[in-house]
Amino acid sequence: MTTESRTLVRAARPAEPGASVAGAIAPDQGMRARILQAAAALFHRQGFERTTMQGIAHAVGLTKGSLYHHIRGKQALLYEILQHTLDRSLPDLEQIAAAPSPASERLRRAVRLHIFTLMHDRDNVVCFIEEGRSLAPEYRDAYLERRDRYEALFRRIIDDGIRSGEFLPTDVRLAGLAVLGMVNWMVRWYRPDGRHPAEEIASRFGDYAVGALRNTGGEDVGQRA
Amino acid sequence: MTTESRTLVRAARPAEPGASVAGAIAPDQGMRARILQAAAALFHRQGFERTTMQGIAHAVGLTKGSLYHHIRGKQALLYEILQHTLDRSLPDLEQIAAAPSPASERLRRAVRLHIFTLMHDRDNVVCFIEEGRSLAPEYRDAYLERRDRYEALFRRIIDDGIRSGEFLPTDVRLAGLAVLGMVNWMVRWYRPDGRHPAEEIASRFGDYAVGALRNTGGEDVGQRA
Repeated sequence: MTTESRTLVRAARPAEPGASVAGAIAPDQGMRARILQAAAALFHRQGFERTTMQGIAHAVGLTKGSLYHHIRGKQALLYEILQHTLDRSLPDLEQIAAAPSPASERLRRAVRLHIFTLMHDRDNVVCFIEEGRSLAPEYRDAYLERRDRYEALFRRIIDDGIRSGEFLPTDVRLAGLAVLGMVNWMVRWYRPDGRHPAEEIASRFGDYAVGALRNTGGEDVGQRA
Repeated sequence: MTTESRTLVRAARPAEPGASVAGAIAPDQGMRARILQAAAALFHRQGFERTTMQGIAHAVGLTKGSLYHHIRGKQALLYEILQHTLDRSLPDLEQIAAAPSPASERLRRAVRLHIFTLMHDRDNVVCFIEEGRSLAPEYRDAYLERRDRYEALFRRIIDDGIRSGEFLPTDVRLAGLAVLGMVNWMVRWYRPDGRHPAEEIASRFGDYAVGALRNTGGEDVGQRA
């Protein structure tokens, strides 16, 4: 079992029904976890704008008044979901980026981690990718700063690959946006019951990402206008 | 001037202030074009959910009642914007896909067309990419059918490339989603006043797309698990 898949099993655990209550978490923390999970599911299904605090309260069996006892409001909830999502995957991505293996192998592992996280923690990741724009200004800077730390690890791997000659010289920022776009777009088409097994998607997208940047040794890659 | 850039100049024209009124279009059609343009800009800026018919009426200097004289409602408006966007780019993409040139060259041109359309017709394309999900069921099938015609042209080029040996054998659907994800993701980061000139983005993303799929002649592309 790789580091990534182990983490994902761990990360997926709180999403099991009742797990947060039955586990070692204090009752209040259990309710908080349930609220976050229910809110992420609603934001994913109907979008942040259309989700009400009333709807979230209903999903966890609280009155709207009691819900405010646990959480300050919809913006605070969204912010916590986004932070939570990064807290889970940032340490693993940091470990991958810092590994002593070739950049192409690290890029493949980073793409794989991103895809598996998206698949196993879908409500949260979709919120992260689709609803971050809905954050109010007072939360936005902190969110963008942490999101950039995540994305910078992809750029670091790409930069290492260019320096080592594994990857073609290219603009690191554009290359990072291309790779992240490829994988983030999955939130629009991936279905757990879809036709492609997770393993196939992770493997092929790893190939595409590495292929997109690979230094093929002076082969003509087309007119650069 | 390539076919693509010529089309884009044409496509971009109605977005100029007053162009639809000053041009050869009948007054009523001019107002309709202005409504579509204003709605696309508002949907882009504040999202479909948060935009009201009142806000659209205000943007074009009509009362809400007069606006309903021109258009049935917000859903009809969104649908028309999405159809309009495809009407502009589908014929050009069809021409590129059917050209007698190598698949890698056609893929590069298709990516370029997509990127330039996105840049020049930004409000409409962002609506197309971000707000299509907001369409009511009665419009959704027609939208998805046409969107799939567009995406199928990318798959056709990729399939041709696999058959000719230019591209590695891969799953055509996943490869298409990877390439489209890479370029569609631009709606999240592209800014007209950003640091990368349009030409650079189109050229590099064309390289990435072709590189992702290129058959490097039996070179090891990593463990496919």
